[in-house]
This record gives sequence, structure tokens and C-alpha cells, in this order.
Amino acid sequence: MTGKTWAYEDFVEGASLDIGSKTVSAAEIIEFASEFDAQPMHLDEEAGKASILGGLSASGWHTCAMFMRMLCDAFLLDSTSQGSPGIEHVKWKKPVLAGDTLRGTVTILSKRQSKSRPQLGLITMRSELVNQRGESVFELENTGMFLTHEAAA
Amino acid sequence: MTGKTWAYEDFVEGASLDIGSKTVSAAEIIEFASEFDAQPMHLDEEAGKASILGGLSASGWHTCAMFMRMLCDAFLLDSTSQGSPGIEHVKWKKPVLAGDTLRGTVTILSKRQSKSRPQLGLITMRSELVNQRGESVFELENTGMFLTHEAAA
Repeated sequence: MTGKTWAYEDFVEGASLDIGSKTVSAAEIIEFASEFDAQPMHLDEEAGKASILGGLSASGWHTCAMFMRMLCDAFLLDSTSQGSPGIEHVKWKKPVLAGDTLRGTVTILSKRQSKSRPQLGLITMRSELVNQRGESVFELENTGMFLTHEAAA
Repeated sequence: MTGKTWAYEDFVEGASLDIGSKTVSAAEIIEFASEFDAQPMHLDEEAGKASILGGLSASGWHTCAMFMRMLCDAFLLDSTSQGSPGIEHVKWKKPVLAGDTLRGTVTILSKRQSKSRPQLGLITMRSELVNQRGESVFELENTGMFLTHEAAA
């Protein structure tokens, strides 16, 4: 055994995992945007209100990063994760505004062992974040690589 | 006129834009990972070497965020950008390691005016980051929304 709760074998197709919740503050939105995505609607409440986003809104990449942190805390840091080859798609469906509370769910779509590296398994997941009004704001489909228990032992 | 150099009309299908370069330090990799993606290979040189990534490697989301900053500095902050509905795909093709210098190119794949909001145009772009060895490390396809000059005036 690996000591990790989540290895390749532990993901079940069709299962859904609650990855908890995260409230985003105006200060966090502005801090991320200042470094990586300094568009006015991510830096200033008035500019956000004047934009089609309707308020001070998180950079889409900030939403991705917050999602990743939720995933880490929920199970990824207690897993045999070996990273990811990429993302099938991201949908930023509605603005994430200062003060919003996001709740996340991950659904396991499919799994398969790598042919070239049998110690690695590929898990394809669809993830969703919903805000405090029950509106779906973010959807992501991606594939993660996880060692088997035996390979990680 | 808007005062912005880049409105919907200014993007030309097939054109390629150089978005400059960015060298990523170990400290930046660890800082981003500590907040958003605290997997061992993004926090510690030895853990990175022991992983299939082969060294202290940037979180894939950090690479996305660095790309976004390059895009902002190259033209997005001098544009009529209204954000993006999402990402068609992201490919993390090779690890981005501490000390790597990334150079980026954006190619305009297609453009169309929104039917429901004619003041908005949708620009679909494919972007690529290449490291100092000429290896393609990152590819992204996404759609951005830009106001026309007239709408932004």
C-alpha cells in the first residue's frame, strides 16, 4: 500500500465527489488579477459593473486556480497524482463575483490504464462549481494521471 | 475610435502575434503552488526529480496564468476585451521547469460577430509556448470577446 488514500484503483466510474466550498473576496480577486490578468473588470468594482460581467469578477484563470486548490484539499494531496496532460475544456458559464461562495463536485467519467506505462492510470473527470444561488458558474473536463497502489508502494 | 489599439476589427484571421517571453523562477513556482496546487512536484526540487516531470515544475495552472500575463502585456490590456466564455482545450505537453524561458505566439484562427449582441465579436485563437530548447510545452485554444471600435467609443 502507498499510504495514500486515492490511487488509480480507488476512482470509480460514475462516482461523484464533493470537493467542498470556497468564498472569494474582493482582495483575492484583485491580488490574482494584479499579477496575472490585469483587465479592469478584475481590478475595480466600477469597471466590473460597467462591463458585461456586472461586478468585480474573478479572472477565469483565478477560478481555475481556486478550483485546483479545492481539488487538492479534497483528495488530490492524499492521492498518487502525477499531474495532467491537459484539459478537454473549460466553460466560464457565469461571472464569479466578489463575495460569491463556490461549491464543487467532481464526477469520474472514465478510467483506463496507460498502455505504455502500466503503472499509471488515466482518470477523466468532469467538475463543476455552483454559486450560492445554485447557478452553475464553471465546468471543466480534464484527465489526471495517478499511480496504482502497487507502483506507488 | 476607442483609444484602444485592439478592437474586434483589428484581429486578422491567420495572423500570428508574438507575445514575448517569460522566465520562471523556482520561487515563483513554489509561491503559486503553495496557494493553489500544493502537489510535491510543484513545491520541492527533489520531489520533482523523483516524479515523471523530472524537476521542480510549474503547476499547469501556473503556466496558464503566466501565459495570461504575457497575453495581457502583449495586447489584451490595450484591447476592447470583454472576457472569455471558456477554453476549447489546454495541452500541457512538456514540464515547465524552474529556470525555463517561455516564448509565446498567438494565431488568430477565426472571428465572427455575435448574432445576439452585434457590438461584440468572438475571436478564436490558438496559442503556444515554447521553451529555450525550442520544445513546445503548452498549447491552448480559446475564444475571446471583444467590442467593436464603434461600440467601445
